[in-house]
Amino acid sequence: MTALKDYSKEELQAELKKLLSRFEEIKGQNLKLDMTRGKPSPEQLDLSQKMLTILTEDEYKSANGTDCRNYGGVDGLPEAKEIFAEFLEVGVNELVIGGNASLTLMHDTVVNALLHGVVGGEKPWIQQKVKFICPSPGYDRHFSVCEHHGIEMIAVANGANGPDMDEVEKLVASDDSIKGIWCVPKYGNPTGATFSDEVVDRLAGMKTAANDFRIFWDNAYTVHHLNDNKDQLKNILEACKSAGNSDRVFIFGSTSKISFAGAGVGVMGGSEANMNWVRKNLSMQTIGPDKLNQLRHIRFFENFDGIKTHMKKHAALLRPKFSLVREILDSELGGLEIATWSNPNGGYFISMDTLDDCAKEVVAMAAEVGVKLTGAGATFPYKNDPDNKNIRLAPSLPSLEEIKKAMEVVAVCVKIASVKKLLK
Amino acid sequence: MTALKDYSKEELQAELKKLLSRFEEIKGQNLKLDMTRGKPSPEQLDLSQKMLTILTEDEYKSANGTDCRNYGGVDGLPEAKEIFAEFLEVGVNELVIGGNASLTLMHDTVVNALLHGVVGGEKPWIQQKVKFICPSPGYDRHFSVCEHHGIEMIAVANGANGPDMDEVEKLVASDDSIKGIWCVPKYGNPTGATFSDEVVDRLAGMKTAANDFRIFWDNAYTVHHLNDNKDQLKNILEACKSAGNSDRVFIFGSTSKISFAGAGVGVMGGSEANMNWVRKNLSMQTIGPDKLNQLRHIRFFENFDGIKTHMKKHAALLRPKFSLVREILDSELGGLEIATWSNPNGGYFISMDTLDDCAKEVVAMAAEVGVKLTGAGATFPYKNDPDNKNIRLAPSLPSLEEIKKAMEVVAVCVKIASVKKLLK
Repeated sequence: MTALKDYSKEELQAELKKLLSRFEEIKGQNLKLDMTRGKPSPEQLDLSQKMLTILTEDEYKSANGTDCRNYGGVDGLPEAKEIFAEFLEVGVNELVIGGNASLTLMHDTVVNALLHGVVGGEKPWIQQKVKFICPSPGYDRHFSVCEHHGIEMIAVANGANGPDMDEVEKLVASDDSIKGIWCVPKYGNPTGATFSDEVVDRLAGMKTAANDFRIFWDNAYTVHHLNDNKDQLKNILEACKSAGNSDRVFIFGSTSKISFAGAGVGVMGGSEANMNWVRKNLSMQTIGPDKLNQLRHIRFFENFDGIKTHMKKHAALLRPKFSLVREILDSELGGLEIATWSNPNGGYFISMDTLDDCAKEVVAMAAEVGVKLTGAGATFPYKNDPDNKNIRLAPSLPSLEEIKKAMEVVAVCVKIASVKKLLK
Repeated sequence: MTALKDYSKEELQAELKKLLSRFEEIKGQNLKLDMTRGKPSPEQLDLSQKMLTILTEDEYKSANGTDCRNYGGVDGLPEAKEIFAEFLEVGVNELVIGGNASLTLMHDTVVNALLHGVVGGEKPWIQQKVKFICPSPGYDRHFSVCEHHGIEMIAVANGANGPDMDEVEKLVASDDSIKGIWCVPKYGNPTGATFSDEVVDRLAGMKTAANDFRIFWDNAYTVHHLNDNKDQLKNILEACKSAGNSDRVFIFGSTSKISFAGAGVGVMGGSEANMNWVRKNLSMQTIGPDKLNQLRHIRFFENFDGIKTHMKKHAALLRPKFSLVREILDSELGGLEIATWSNPNGGYFISMDTLDDCAKEVVAMAAEVGVKLTGAGATFPYKNDPDNKNIRLAPSLPSLEEIKKAMEVVAVCVKIASVKKLLK
């Protein structure tokens, strides 16, 4: 395959003509496909179907006799903590169990820091300008939280081993208004990359001008492997403790993509001092989380091994979808040198980079023929991808047949946008 | 029965001797009773037991086909909105369904107002001094939210028809830092009183110096009647609309004391403009609430009539407990003129006023013999009951036998404290 950049002008024009005719043909198919969000498929949700009926009329107490129907227990059931402590790789006192969404725990942690400051901080964050480092491409909902609350975002390149640490270290060392960094450290959204041990250690140990700096460690995909070639992520809390910065990290996770996306269990971890701060804030906000739903999870998974076994079933459903996306990209775009795409060992996304200045056009063209993609730029702060090249592909929800059609559309659109660019 | 104040000094001393001997006898019983919180009893929770098993492996979609297991629907399922709109007496677009706790909705509404301001406000509340009016005695958790977030609380007398409106009107008219008022308008916690139509109208219509003033209307006990003599509460949203202040009120409710206290559904209502503000804030915090739990409620109650029928079963369990409390208070304290207590038609509490300066001693003495009561002062801002006389009695959780013992202790302690006071 010849790289597109080596085509003559005439060859490019001929190619464009073919592509546009293919585009018109696709348009006639009246497709209606959605690859925007990392939603589990119905078949994945079916894997946890027994959880719907696992509690019986006699089965509503936890091991210590707590009536899970009633009020109380602001940070979760003891036996749920056992499982989730292992899940987050923290101690049982270094853990708080929330409601159905880890996003709520993240958002509320930012809010509480803004209004009250954090452990070891001298004042509420809101009393000065607040900035966060946002490794990009990254998770759009993290960036929305910052934008909504007026936190200035500083984009830093997010690569195969995690964020550009030279840049991160330089920034945090000199600016005490930088209070946090968002990280999806394993099978990142959308990069699919896992932070290297070196990146983890540098984040844990780096000198920060702000003494109340926090890492927001959204370990959303910690057990979400796609194959047996599992990425390993170094334990951030241990690394922070070793570096003498035990309060530096807030760790987040959930079962949203393990059990039910809308009815899972969100959890957070960190030093006991940090978790006591969280518990105090939580006690103003709630009398306690839904313990019956925690009990469903305990009875269904039994222990952390139960979760790991369960995740192999998810992988079996997701793997062919990820393979198909890559197959089509390989066959349609391979060798043309107009796009690169990730090959993650886990997570929910394939991240594609087009030639500069092509992403918006690709997403718009795909929409024109009925294929919805995540908005171009969504993976960057302020929805602004400076190179206008990153596209997030979310293959979990559509069927294989739908993925095939959608990815052909994506490939055709990438080629059209690229040819047009090269013809300019 | 002779009023205690008409006893001679000798008679009081003789009475005290008898009471102290009774107190010592009770001490020997090693009681361990708890009347601190408005928690439903296990028998009440049993009323909703079928909700635990009502979803089946084929029953997880809502009427419009939504897969309730998956992400989405930030403000709730359409069919859940139908029921809860009737429940809150608002339109379906004037409603947002949250997680398992209305306290979370209240807390987060305060937080969002602090950080972002409310509809029609010019700036975030936090940019100036913020004060709330707190009709007292009132709900301790409302006051904790204020105290935690540095909102200054102004106590106003809370009587048989609601707050002292002359005082409320005077305060809000002159001070634009007063941004809110906490109300438990029906079967109030702890007064048991329901706001009169006049109070509702005056709250809705009063002139406020702050143009971003809000009523926090915690209608926690709207269907929680104890008998057929039901209190009627005027519709606050309608009253606000009639007065041209449609954005003035945030209404809150939940099924915590209808279905399961720890696994109910929290809801809030208000003008569509207010609810759009809530929806926007919520969309930063969550991808959506637990729709499966909403579905359990829909399937179990079917409609609002189902809720009302269900509440009669709660009343049948609660009524004898409330009657017993009053029986013992009547028989032990009647005619002594040392205490008054409420006789509510609904809700979860009986509010007792002792002679001035006796409440703390009563609660401490009761604790000494193993009967835990809500802390004296807890029903006032900053835990400060200026007359030190209010005691909140929560009869829902203990059994009849336990209530009998606990209330005898309360009566004896009230008598001891009163006699001691009169002997001073």
